[in-house]
Amino acid sequence: MAKRAIPDIVVGRLPVYLRALTFLMAEGRQVTSSQELGDRLGISSAQIRKDLSHFGEFGKQGTGYDIAYLYEQLRQILKVDRMWDVVLVGAGNLGKAIADYGGFAGKGFVIRAIFDTDPSKIASPMGIDDLVVKDVRELADAIRQLEIKVGIIATPAEDAQAVARTMADAGIKAILNYAPITLMVPGVRVQYIDPVVGLQRMTYYL
Amino acid sequence: MAKRAIPDIVVGRLPVYLRALTFLMAEGRQVTSSQELGDRLGISSAQIRKDLSHFGEFGKQGTGYDIAYLYEQLRQILKVDRMWDVVLVGAGNLGKAIADYGGFAGKGFVIRAIFDTDPSKIASPMGIDDLVVKDVRELADAIRQLEIKVGIIATPAEDAQAVARTMADAGIKAILNYAPITLMVPGVRVQYIDPVVGLQRMTYYL
Repeated sequence: MAKRAIPDIVVGRLPVYLRALTFLMAEGRQVTSSQELGDRLGISSAQIRKDLSHFGEFGKQGTGYDIAYLYEQLRQILKVDRMWDVVLVGAGNLGKAIADYGGFAGKGFVIRAIFDTDPSKIASPMGIDDLVVKDVRELADAIRQLEIKVGIIATPAEDAQAVARTMADAGIKAILNYAPITLMVPGVRVQYIDPVVGLQRMTYYL
Repeated sequence: MAKRAIPDIVVGRLPVYLRALTFLMAEGRQVTSSQELGDRLGISSAQIRKDLSHFGEFGKQGTGYDIAYLYEQLRQILKVDRMWDVVLVGAGNLGKAIADYGGFAGKGFVIRAIFDTDPSKIASPMGIDDLVVKDVRELADAIRQLEIKVGIIATPAEDAQAVARTMADAGIKAILNYAPITLMVPGVRVQYIDPVVGLQRMTYYL
């Protein structure tokens, strides 16, 4: 109920906190502070405390945060304490880089199927799980059969809208879009990965 | 002077507005409204008007925004009305996808040099400009000689911090980081491209 009131910008920082906690755990650390997290992330400690306070009391005055506990809490809040099946469309260089990326599994995601339109790519194995690339015409059926809710689009810009529409119609609720266009898929959440946006956001300050 | 007072989150939306204007221009359109932009981007029209009002008066009540004019103004504000030279470190699948990406040139960026540590990649041509991949040991000299301010890191996580440090020491002021780690480079602006962060930000709502 209070959940919907939490600003999206706050939700967007939680995965960054989660990543920082993962690194601290890998370093063998057990306790951290909003000050240390802030220093590592370039965010003020007050902002971190305020962000986390939306979700409960995670730290104690003077003793800081128990890293393993906060990590588990954030995983539950972000619903990545479970595994989400993902479809990937686009098996070019970018799709291959995504399929080869080892960082999804421990973070709540596993790519279950890869699709492309290119006959030279279809039926070839790809990625860390050696998935056989399928014809994009099989995309809708696969999403429905596997009840997949999360999709990644790594196609050229001109193909992305049609792929997004197919995904949405078949039941996908969240799309990570690498194609440099804004998708029109009402009712589906979309996050964009566009290097130009990242770069232009920085040149403003140069 | 007022510039520093503009929230980073507002600056971060300007490239998205710029991209939407580019699409409208490609459609042959000449005038748009905050309402139309908002519908396309999933942002409220009030937010768009408020964001743009930080930078001046771009629209007229009742007639909307002149697309070409607003496009030019945003390019100037973001300083992408000029061309920024960029170095890319990492010539794996991801680096190759970035080097092959045709979307930089019209947006203010051009990759001038590509570096890797892998002898099998060094000296091979890569990307749309057929740049010869260089040994990462030449990175610092190249940045200084070409006076490059912008870098892209597409290396494995374990190499990224050392690369970022080399970049910073040689004069890079803005880094787009694809490696899934938080970089510690004081005085350098960093934007992160991490698919896990994008995905986790959506599962919260599912």
